[in-house]
Amino acid sequence: MDILFYNGSFLPAEKISIDPSDRGFLLGDGVFDTMLSVDGNPLHDHAHFTRLKTHADIMGIPAPTMDLPRIAADLLKRNGFIKGRHAIRTTLSRGPAPRGLAIPETVNPTLMMRAFPVPDPPATIQVAIARTVRRNEGSVLSRIKSLNYGDSVLAMREAKQSGADDAILLNNRGEVCCLTASNIMIMEGDTIITPPLSCGVLDGIERGLIISSGQARKDVITVERLKAADAVFCVNSIIGKVKVLIQS
Amino acid sequence: MDILFYNGSFLPAEKISIDPSDRGFLLGDGVFDTMLSVDGNPLHDHAHFTRLKTHADIMGIPAPTMDLPRIAADLLKRNGFIKGRHAIRTTLSRGPAPRGLAIPETVNPTLMMRAFPVPDPPATIQVAIARTVRRNEGSVLSRIKSLNYGDSVLAMREAKQSGADDAILLNNRGEVCCLTASNIMIMEGDTIITPPLSCGVLDGIERGLIISSGQARKDVITVERLKAADAVFCVNSIIGKVKVLIQS
Repeated sequence: MDILFYNGSFLPAEKISIDPSDRGFLLGDGVFDTMLSVDGNPLHDHAHFTRLKTHADIMGIPAPTMDLPRIAADLLKRNGFIKGRHAIRTTLSRGPAPRGLAIPETVNPTLMMRAFPVPDPPATIQVAIARTVRRNEGSVLSRIKSLNYGDSVLAMREAKQSGADDAILLNNRGEVCCLTASNIMIMEGDTIITPPLSCGVLDGIERGLIISSGQARKDVITVERLKAADAVFCVNSIIGKVKVLIQS
Repeated sequence: MDILFYNGSFLPAEKISIDPSDRGFLLGDGVFDTMLSVDGNPLHDHAHFTRLKTHADIMGIPAPTMDLPRIAADLLKRNGFIKGRHAIRTTLSRGPAPRGLAIPETVNPTLMMRAFPVPDPPATIQVAIARTVRRNEGSVLSRIKSLNYGDSVLAMREAKQSGADDAILLNNRGEVCCLTASNIMIMEGDTIITPPLSCGVLDGIERGLIISSGQARKDVITVERLKAADAVFCVNSIIGKVKVLIQS
């Protein structure tokens, strides 16, 4: 049975109903996080939940005060996910509200946490550069994990239609940003380069760990530089680091 | 009682539950429409539902084959909304799906229609130019009514914090796009100008009617041009045309 944590309770999926006036559903008004658990142990859970709270704060959504790492550990146990690889997705929306964009004075955010078995990552993936969608470097939403993933959905759809596994997204200046759900890193000799957040890049946990350990440095990556790189990788918390082959 | 149309049935709001794996809630993967009804008569309903289907098609979401104008009329009657002004919001998401951005081979879209009493529009509104968010002219989502309204939510929040009623959004090139949920038109003498869709502008029904009647022409509007205009208006299907005063 698929047990979720939903607004304070552990419940089977079929007992959970999102309110039809939830602003997460109607307006993309929320944030989320996805982290990896290996053999029942969530990795970097405190970093993930700190980021979730930071991103909620940026959108002005009251952050949950519950002990999220404990809830995540409990969720894994209740689902029997004590061996192997699992993704834990935490979704926080602003919750149900009257019609309109303006934020009501009192809100009642929706908090949902769910765990999923995930396969081992592939050794390499084939990617295409998205033609129909650019990342929005001019919005703070491009740097936080908000529920507004429509651009990534469309870029992934375009990639699959061209026979690729994923897409590389450029921003409106034509600079390289990321894949649809992972950060990008290029190798130039022994140096690892990844774009700065100001390019319209999600503040990924795995990306942050690689930068803060001194393994990568931040710099703008043009398409020419991307194509001339000695190697290209995508990184996120679920897949780790996977080699990327760019379709010509 | 608040009656909604939901996946083929008319139901009271409290009986409706959005599936926790609905891609509309998790990823902003859907489209919507809002139209005005006056005294029980939806205005331009065929244009609204044709656009909804066009926007669904752009996202690759199977469009509903039901008679949406008939459902809208029925919804108003069942709620007793036969006098006065009402908004009818139709939401179409790609529906529940397994984890991930890739679109599954078979989808089961969620269709929801709800009606709301709406007040008369104000005579004028005060607006501020958004500083923290730009429209994404590089994404087709900026031209369609998708569920990804996070940028507008943040721009509206910023506007309210500065004491304004709404925000004007610029694109990444610094050109004027729209307000958070309405199109913008400026007057220069007797001429009405509105930005082309390529600026990152929603293809609004009211905007389209004004252009196709020959009342307005499309041109890029810079901030300088906006501030020098003889008058500024916002237009959408619910408010019609409302005068805009720009905060200095």
